[in-house]
Amino acid sequence: MSVYKEFIEPNNAYVANFGDKGKLPLPPAKKLAIVTCMDARINVYAELGINEGDAHIIRNAGGSAKDALRSIIISQRLLGTREIAVFHHTGCGMLTFNTPGLRKLVKDADPENPGVNAIDNIDFLEFPEIEQSVKDDVAFLKENPLVLKESTITGWVYEVETGKIRQIV
Amino acid sequence: MSVYKEFIEPNNAYVANFGDKGKLPLPPAKKLAIVTCMDARINVYAELGINEGDAHIIRNAGGSAKDALRSIIISQRLLGTREIAVFHHTGCGMLTFNTPGLRKLVKDADPENPGVNAIDNIDFLEFPEIEQSVKDDVAFLKENPLVLKESTITGWVYEVETGKIRQIV
Repeated sequence: MSVYKEFIEPNNAYVANFGDKGKLPLPPAKKLAIVTCMDARINVYAELGINEGDAHIIRNAGGSAKDALRSIIISQRLLGTREIAVFHHTGCGMLTFNTPGLRKLVKDADPENPGVNAIDNIDFLEFPEIEQSVKDDVAFLKENPLVLKESTITGWVYEVETGKIRQIV
Repeated sequence: MSVYKEFIEPNNAYVANFGDKGKLPLPPAKKLAIVTCMDARINVYAELGINEGDAHIIRNAGGSAKDALRSIIISQRLLGTREIAVFHHTGCGMLTFNTPGLRKLVKDADPENPGVNAIDNIDFLEFPEIEQSVKDDVAFLKENPLVLKESTITGWVYEVETGKIRQIV
Protein backbone atom coordinates (compact mmCIF):
# COMPACT_ATOMS: atom_id res chain seq x y z
CA MET A 1 0.00 0.00 0.00
CA SER A 2 1.47 3.31 -1.08
CA VAL A 3 0.74 6.11 1.36
CA TYR A 4 0.03 8.67 -1.38
CA LYS A 5 -3.37 7.07 -1.95
CA GLU A 6 -4.30 8.23 1.55
CA PHE A 7 -3.90 11.92 0.57
CA ILE A 8 -7.11 12.15 -1.44
CA GLU A 9 -9.81 11.79 1.23
CA PRO A 10 -8.33 14.29 3.73
CA ASN A 11 -7.65 16.66 0.84
CA ASN A 12 -11.32 16.53 -0.22
CA ALA A 13 -12.25 17.51 3.34
CA TYR A 14 -9.68 20.35 3.32
CA VAL A 15 -11.07 21.67 0.02
CA ALA A 16 -14.65 21.51 1.35
CA ASN A 17 -13.68 23.76 4.26
CA PHE A 18 -11.20 25.98 2.39
CA GLY A 19 -13.19 29.16 3.01
CA ASP A 20 -11.56 32.31 1.63
CA LYS A 21 -7.98 31.08 1.91
CA GLY A 22 -7.83 31.11 -1.90
CA LYS A 23 -7.61 34.89 -1.73
CA LEU A 24 -4.44 34.99 0.38
CA PRO A 25 -1.60 36.93 -1.29
CA LEU A 26 1.78 35.41 -2.17
CA PRO A 27 3.94 37.50 0.26
CA PRO A 28 3.78 36.25 3.88
CA ALA A 29 1.57 38.49 6.04
CA LYS A 30 3.93 38.40 9.05
CA LYS A 31 7.04 39.07 6.90
CA LEU A 32 8.51 36.00 8.62
CA ALA A 33 10.56 33.02 7.42
CA ILE A 34 10.89 29.99 9.71
CA VAL A 35 13.75 27.52 9.24
CA THR A 36 13.30 24.17 10.94
CA CYS A 37 14.00 20.45 10.63
CA MET A 38 12.11 18.00 8.37
CA ASP A 39 11.57 15.83 11.49
CA ALA A 40 8.20 14.07 11.41
CA ARG A 41 7.33 15.12 14.97
CA ILE A 42 7.39 18.86 14.21
CA ASN A 43 4.04 20.53 13.47
CA VAL A 44 5.12 24.12 12.86
CA TYR A 45 1.64 25.61 12.51
CA ALA A 46 0.29 24.13 15.74
CA GLU A 47 3.49 24.64 17.74
CA LEU A 48 3.79 28.38 16.96
CA GLY A 49 0.22 29.43 16.25
CA ILE A 50 0.96 30.09 12.56
CA ASN A 51 -1.85 30.11 9.98
CA GLU A 52 -1.99 29.87 6.21
CA GLY A 53 -0.57 33.05 4.68
CA ASP A 54 1.56 34.05 7.68
CA ALA A 55 5.12 32.81 7.06
CA HIS A 56 7.49 30.99 4.77
CA ILE A 57 8.31 27.59 6.23
CA ILE A 58 11.70 26.23 5.16
CA ARG A 59 12.44 22.67 6.33
CA ASN A 60 15.43 20.43 5.73
CA ALA A 61 17.44 17.78 7.59
CA GLY A 62 18.47 19.55 10.80
CA GLY A 63 16.92 22.93 10.04
CA SER A 64 20.22 24.08 8.53
CA ALA A 65 20.42 27.81 7.79
CA LYS A 66 23.24 27.19 5.33
CA ASP A 67 21.08 24.73 3.35
CA ALA A 68 18.22 27.25 3.51
CA LEU A 69 20.19 30.21 2.10
CA ARG A 70 18.80 30.00 -1.46
CA SER A 71 15.26 30.01 -0.09
CA ILE A 72 15.95 32.81 2.40
CA ILE A 73 17.32 35.09 -0.33
CA ILE A 74 14.18 34.53 -2.44
CA SER A 75 12.00 35.05 0.65
CA GLN A 76 13.64 38.37 1.54
CA ARG A 77 14.39 39.91 -1.85
CA LEU A 78 11.31 38.87 -3.81
CA LEU A 79 8.64 38.31 -1.15
CA GLY A 80 9.44 40.90 1.50
CA THR A 81 10.21 38.90 4.65
CA ARG A 82 12.40 40.69 7.22
CA GLU A 83 12.45 38.26 10.15
CA ILE A 84 14.02 34.79 10.36
CA ALA A 85 13.47 32.28 13.18
CA VAL A 86 15.74 29.22 13.20
CA PHE A 87 14.57 26.16 15.14
CA HIS A 88 16.65 23.05 15.89
CA HIS A 89 15.23 20.32 18.13
CA THR A 90 16.05 17.75 20.78
CA GLY A 91 16.41 14.15 19.59
CA CYS A 92 17.49 15.29 16.12
CA GLY A 93 18.80 12.72 13.64
CA MET A 94 21.65 15.12 12.81
CA LEU A 95 23.22 14.27 16.19
CA THR A 96 23.50 10.56 15.28
CA PHE A 97 25.91 10.33 12.34
CA ASN A 98 28.70 12.07 10.46
CA THR A 99 29.27 12.84 6.78
CA PRO A 100 32.14 10.35 6.20
CA GLY A 101 30.09 7.55 7.77
CA LEU A 102 27.01 8.29 5.67
CA ARG A 103 29.09 8.53 2.49
CA LYS A 104 30.56 5.09 3.25
CA LEU A 105 27.12 3.62 3.97
CA VAL A 106 25.76 4.81 0.62
CA LYS A 107 28.79 3.62 -1.35
CA ASP A 108 28.92 0.24 0.41
CA ALA A 109 25.21 -0.33 -0.41
CA ASP A 110 25.82 -0.13 -4.18
CA PRO A 111 29.52 -0.86 -4.77
CA GLU A 112 29.21 -1.64 -8.49
CA ASN A 113 27.66 1.76 -9.33
CA PRO A 114 30.15 4.59 -9.97
CA GLY A 115 27.24 7.06 -9.85
CA VAL A 116 27.14 6.81 -6.06
CA ASN A 117 30.52 8.55 -5.83
CA ALA A 118 28.57 11.80 -6.27
CA ILE A 119 27.91 11.45 -2.54
CA ASP A 120 31.47 12.72 -1.94
CA ASN A 121 30.28 16.16 -3.10
CA ILE A 122 27.56 16.40 -0.42
CA ASP A 123 28.22 17.90 3.00
CA PHE A 124 25.45 16.50 5.19
CA LEU A 125 25.77 19.41 7.69
CA GLU A 126 25.45 17.26 10.82
CA PHE A 127 26.14 18.79 14.24
CA PRO A 128 27.07 17.40 17.67
CA GLU A 129 25.03 19.68 19.97
CA ILE A 130 21.83 21.61 19.31
CA GLU A 131 22.20 24.81 21.36
CA GLN A 132 25.57 25.45 19.74
CA SER A 133 24.23 24.59 16.28
CA VAL A 134 21.44 27.15 16.75
CA LYS A 135 23.99 29.80 17.75
CA ASP A 136 26.18 28.86 14.77
CA ASP A 137 23.28 29.10 12.33
CA VAL A 138 22.14 32.49 13.63
CA ALA A 139 25.74 33.77 13.40
CA PHE A 140 25.98 32.39 9.84
CA LEU A 141 22.90 34.38 8.83
CA LYS A 142 23.88 37.56 10.68
CA GLU A 143 27.33 37.58 9.07
CA ASN A 144 26.22 36.59 5.57
CA PRO A 145 26.33 39.50 3.09
CA LEU A 146 23.46 37.95 1.12
CA VAL A 147 21.08 38.23 4.09
CA LEU A 148 19.56 41.68 4.63
CA LYS A 149 21.25 43.60 7.47
CA GLU A 150 17.91 44.87 8.79
CA SER A 151 16.64 41.33 9.43
CA THR A 152 15.50 40.29 12.92
CA ILE A 153 17.07 36.84 13.46
CA THR A 154 16.30 34.58 16.42
CA GLY A 155 17.35 31.03 17.28
CA TRP A 156 15.36 28.42 19.20
CA VAL A 157 15.27 24.85 20.44
CA TYR A 158 12.06 22.81 20.10
CA GLU A 159 11.70 19.98 22.61
CA VAL A 160 10.15 16.93 20.95
CA GLU A 161 9.51 15.44 24.40
CA THR A 162 7.23 18.27 25.58
CA GLY A 163 6.32 20.42 22.55
CA LYS A 164 7.96 23.40 24.25
CA ILE A 165 10.08 26.04 22.47
CA ARG A 166 13.03 27.74 24.13
CA GLN A 167 14.79 30.85 22.77
CA ILE A 168 18.59 30.53 22.55
CA VAL A 169 19.53 33.66 20.60
CA MET B 1 6.97 44.55 16.97
CA SER B 2 8.94 41.38 16.20
CA VAL B 3 6.70 38.46 15.34
CA TYR B 4 8.76 35.96 17.36
CA LYS B 5 7.24 37.34 20.56
CA GLU B 6 3.91 35.97 19.35
CA PHE B 7 5.21 32.37 19.41
CA ILE B 8 5.10 31.99 23.19
CA GLU B 9 1.37 32.05 23.95
CA PRO B 10 0.29 29.57 21.23
CA ASN B 11 3.23 27.37 22.19
CA ASN B 12 2.06 27.27 25.82
CA ALA B 13 -1.34 26.09 24.58
CA TYR B 14 0.32 23.45 22.34
CA VAL B 15 2.37 22.16 25.29
CA ALA B 16 -0.72 22.02 27.52
CA ASN B 17 -2.45 19.73 25.00
CA PHE B 18 0.64 17.79 23.91
CA GLY B 19 -0.74 14.44 25.09
CA ASP B 20 1.52 11.46 24.40
CA LYS B 21 3.19 12.93 21.31
CA GLY B 22 6.43 13.07 23.32
CA LYS B 23 6.69 9.30 22.90
CA LEU B 24 6.71 9.35 19.08
CA PRO B 25 9.81 7.68 17.60
CA LEU B 26 12.31 9.48 15.34
CA PRO B 27 11.63 7.46 12.12
CA PRO B 28 8.45 8.56 10.27
CA ALA B 29 5.59 6.07 10.81
CA LYS B 30 4.42 6.22 7.18
CA LYS B 31 7.97 5.87 5.77
CA LEU B 32 7.14 8.96 3.72
CA ALA B 33 9.05 12.13 2.79
CA ILE B 34 7.13 15.08 1.36
CA VAL B 35 8.93 17.77 -0.65
CA THR B 36 7.02 21.00 -1.10
CA CYS B 37 7.42 24.77 -1.36
CA MET B 38 8.05 27.16 1.55
CA ASP B 39 5.02 29.17 0.34
CA ALA B 40 3.09 30.69 3.25
CA ARG B 41 -0.27 29.44 1.94
CA ILE B 42 0.67 25.74 2.16
CA ASN B 43 -0.48 23.88 5.31
CA VAL B 44 0.90 20.40 4.61
CA TYR B 45 -0.63 18.67 7.64
CA ALA B 46 -4.17 19.92 7.00
CA GLU B 47 -4.01 19.57 3.22
CA LEU B 48 -2.93 15.90 3.26
CA GLY B 49 -4.26 14.62 6.58
CA ILE B 50 -0.74 14.16 8.00
CA ASN B 51 -0.17 14.03 11.75
CA GLU B 52 2.87 14.41 14.00
CA GLY B 53 5.14 11.39 13.56
CA ASP B 54 3.93 10.45 10.07
CA ALA B 55 6.31 11.95 7.51
CA HIS B 56 9.40 14.02 6.90
CA ILE B 57 8.41 17.43 5.54
CA ILE B 58 11.08 19.07 3.38
CA ARG B 59 10.27 22.61 2.26
CA ASN B 60 12.26 25.08 0.18
CA ALA B 61 11.65 27.78 -2.41
CA GLY B 62 9.69 25.97 -5.14
CA GLY B 63 9.70 22.52 -3.55
CA SER B 64 12.86 21.67 -5.48
CA ALA B 65 13.86 17.99 -5.38
CA LYS B 66 17.42 18.91 -6.30
CA ASP B 67 17.67 21.29 -3.33
CA ALA B 68 16.14 18.55 -1.14
CA LEU B 69 18.61 15.81 -2.10
CA ARG B 70 20.77 16.05 1.05
CA SER B 71 17.68 15.75 3.22
CA ILE B 72 16.20 12.89 1.15
CA ILE B 73 19.39 10.83 1.46
CA ILE B 74 19.35 11.25 5.26
CA SER B 75 15.61 10.45 5.31
CA GLN B 76 16.03 7.23 3.33
CA ARG B 77 19.35 5.87 4.55
CA LEU B 78 19.20 6.76 8.24
CA LEU B 79 15.48 7.04 8.99
CA GLY B 80 13.90 4.40 6.75
CA THR B 81 11.58 6.34 4.42
CA ARG B 82 10.80 4.62 1.11
CA GLU B 83 8.22 6.92 -0.49
CA ILE B 84 8.67 10.50 -1.78
CA ALA B 85 5.84 12.84 -2.80
CA VAL B 86 6.88 16.06 -4.58
CA PHE B 87 4.39 18.95 -4.58
CA HIS B 88 4.70 22.17 -6.60
CA HIS B 89 1.87 24.70 -6.57
CA THR B 90 -0.05 27.22 -8.63
CA GLY B 91 0.88 30.88 -8.13
CA CYS B 92 4.43 29.96 -7.13
CA GLY B 93 7.03 32.70 -6.72
CA MET B 94 9.47 30.54 -8.73
CA LEU B 95 7.50 31.39 -11.86
CA THR B 96 8.13 35.13 -11.44
CA PHE B 97 11.89 35.65 -11.79
CA ASN B 98 15.12 34.18 -13.13
CA THR B 99 18.54 33.60 -11.57
CA PRO B 100 20.44 36.30 -13.54
CA GLY B 101 17.80 38.88 -12.60
CA LEU B 102 17.88 38.00 -8.91
CA ARG B 103 21.69 38.04 -8.85
CA LYS B 104 21.64 41.53 -10.38
CA LEU B 105 19.01 42.73 -7.87
CA VAL B 106 21.12 41.58 -4.91
CA LYS B 107 24.34 43.05 -6.28
CA ASP B 108 22.72 46.37 -7.23
CA ALA B 109 21.30 46.71 -3.69
CA ASP B 110 24.77 46.68 -2.09
CA PRO B 111 27.26 47.69 -4.80
CA GLU B 112 30.13 48.60 -2.44
CA ASN B 113 30.19 45.12 -0.81
CA PRO B 114 32.31 42.52 -2.63
CA GLY B 115 30.77 39.83 -0.37
CA VAL B 116 27.57 39.94 -2.39
CA ASN B 117 29.37 38.44 -5.38
CA ALA B 118 28.88 35.07 -3.66
CA ILE B 119 25.41 35.24 -5.18
CA ASP B 120 26.97 34.20 -8.50
CA ASN B 121 27.51 30.73 -7.01
CA ILE B 122 23.81 30.20 -6.26
CA ASP B 123 21.45 28.61 -8.78
CA PHE B 124 17.99 29.73 -7.66
CA LEU B 125 16.32 26.76 -9.43
CA GLU B 126 13.39 28.76 -10.82
CA PHE B 127 11.04 27.15 -13.39
CA PRO B 128 8.62 28.50 -16.00
CA GLU B 129 5.75 25.96 -15.70
CA ILE B 130 4.64 23.84 -12.75
CA GLU B 131 3.39 20.60 -14.32
CA GLN B 132 6.66 20.27 -16.24
CA SER B 133 8.72 21.17 -13.16
CA VAL B 134 6.95 18.40 -11.20
CA LYS B 135 7.74 15.90 -13.98
CA ASP B 136 11.35 17.10 -14.11
CA ASP B 137 11.79 16.76 -10.34
CA VAL B 138 10.30 13.23 -10.24
CA ALA B 139 12.60 12.23 -13.15
CA PHE B 140 15.58 13.75 -11.30
CA LEU B 141 14.85 11.60 -8.26
CA LYS B 142 14.09 8.41 -10.23
CA GLU B 143 17.34 8.70 -12.18
CA ASN B 144 19.54 9.75 -9.27
CA PRO B 145 21.88 6.95 -8.09
CA LEU B 146 21.81 8.36 -4.55
CA VAL B 147 18.03 7.81 -4.25
CA LEU B 148 17.00 4.24 -3.43
CA LYS B 149 15.73 2.33 -6.47
CA GLU B 150 12.86 0.76 -4.49
CA SER B 151 11.37 4.20 -3.68
CA THR B 152 7.78 5.03 -4.63
CA ILE B 153 7.96 8.55 -6.11
CA THR B 154 4.91 10.63 -7.04
CA GLY B 155 4.53 14.22 -8.26
CA TRP B 156 1.64 16.60 -7.58
CA VAL B 157 0.31 20.10 -8.07
CA TYR B 158 -1.33 21.91 -5.14
CA GLU B 159 -3.82 24.61 -6.13
CA VAL B 160 -3.53 27.61 -3.80
CA GLU B 161 -6.85 28.91 -5.15
CA THR B 162 -8.90 25.88 -4.02
CA GLY B 163 -6.73 23.79 -1.66
CA LYS B 164 -7.01 20.87 -4.08
CA ILE B 165 -4.17 18.45 -4.95
CA ARG B 166 -3.79 16.91 -8.39
CA GLN B 167 -1.46 14.00 -9.20
CA ILE B 168 0.82 14.60 -12.21
CA VAL B 169 3.19 11.61 -12.02
